[in-house]
Amino acid sequence: MMFRATILTLFPEMFPGPLGCSLAGRAREQAIWSLNCVNIRDFGQGRHRAVDDTPFGGGAGMVMRPDVLDAAIGSVADDRPLIALTPRGTPLTQSRVKTLSTGGGVILLCGRYEGFDQRVLDARNAEEISIGDYVLSGGEIAALALLDATIRLLPGVMGAAESADEESFSAPLLEYPHYTRPADWNGHAVPETLLSGHHQAITAWRRSQAETITRTRRPDLWAHHIASQPARP
Amino acid sequence: MMFRATILTLFPEMFPGPLGCSLAGRAREQAIWSLNCVNIRDFGQGRHRAVDDTPFGGGAGMVMRPDVLDAAIGSVADDRPLIALTPRGTPLTQSRVKTLSTGGGVILLCGRYEGFDQRVLDARNAEEISIGDYVLSGGEIAALALLDATIRLLPGVMGAAESADEESFSAPLLEYPHYTRPADWNGHAVPETLLSGHHQAITAWRRSQAETITRTRRPDLWAHHIASQPARP
Repeated sequence: MMFRATILTLFPEMFPGPLGCSLAGRAREQAIWSLNCVNIRDFGQGRHRAVDDTPFGGGAGMVMRPDVLDAAIGSVADDRPLIALTPRGTPLTQSRVKTLSTGGGVILLCGRYEGFDQRVLDARNAEEISIGDYVLSGGEIAALALLDATIRLLPGVMGAAESADEESFSAPLLEYPHYTRPADWNGHAVPETLLSGHHQAITAWRRSQAETITRTRRPDLWAHHIASQPARP
Repeated sequence: MMFRATILTLFPEMFPGPLGCSLAGRAREQAIWSLNCVNIRDFGQGRHRAVDDTPFGGGAGMVMRPDVLDAAIGSVADDRPLIALTPRGTPLTQSRVKTLSTGGGVILLCGRYEGFDQRVLDARNAEEISIGDYVLSGGEIAALALLDATIRLLPGVMGAAESADEESFSAPLLEYPHYTRPADWNGHAVPETLLSGHHQAITAWRRSQAETITRTRRPDLWAHHIASQPARP
């Protein structure tokens, strides 16, 4: 089954962008996924095809109109999940990405300006998702991130050499550090254990490194990890 | 002072991508920021310009070689911060974005395959940054997100109508919902307070909405917010 991505945007020329290259580009050529962009401007009002208006209650910025957005959504809506990319959304997680990758596709709504009229998100039961705690100029790059993360998990996209099993966020800890040739680089040696050939020692070293880096960089993940461990007698 | 972005990547064709359009595209034409891509492959080894090798200690995937990465970094390194995009990194925040936007630019290292040899990140004192808790096929879309967030804050990029002041993550709470015309859309009315003209009531309503949505969607942000409030007598 092909994964169908539909993107509602004022900037269709931003797509496929980076998803036209590398893994995602090849997968699209192989018809593992498809991309369809809808220009929200086509549903705009009047001679200027207006898509936004000033916010009720005052304040800076413009808000995208509910009638315009609803018409754009209605032109493509089916049983795929409708996701609006917004910094107010629930944070995107690898778990959500995995679930999306097992479905038939997704409809992504990309905002510009101050945001969407909330009524259309409520009426259309849109899921609001944020890709991180920073503000982008629009939802387009967030859509690219969500799609890239999802597409690489579709069957046939990653080869065995690109195994997704041991990665950060597939596991509950951040990944241990990696090392490759040369074993001595400018006097910087690879940690001895990794050259020892003792698989058990290597696994233990990597585990310890992953724990240390997670504890240091991500106290939030570490707390979750500790809480999820079975109690020791 | 122009903000100079240099990107080290195996896929220079992915840039400027979406940053060639809209706000960022116009700002680049106005020489508010510049983009320079370096193809890591140009520093690869041998007839095939190899950039990666198998990991010491075993495991799936390939690791980018320290000597190749170091040569690529050395070709552009100056006093700008060097940032490696990786899911093992510290989460990107709006506060880090703001700081970056006040500097002279950034050098971004985009990985593919299993990751970077850790020694070169340590030796070059690279800052490891993650844009979120999901796995991308490479650092390129993460670099686009970081740059987009940074560029919109550069002086002269956003007009007054696109004010950055009241946004999510500029404030400690998620944003309140927005509404615009029509006041009655298919029987869905705009909340009455917003039409009242009472500025104090509108501010209070928005504050309350922002608190509710933050508490519901982001218990982590809400906990921070509560902890940062001055104690009430």
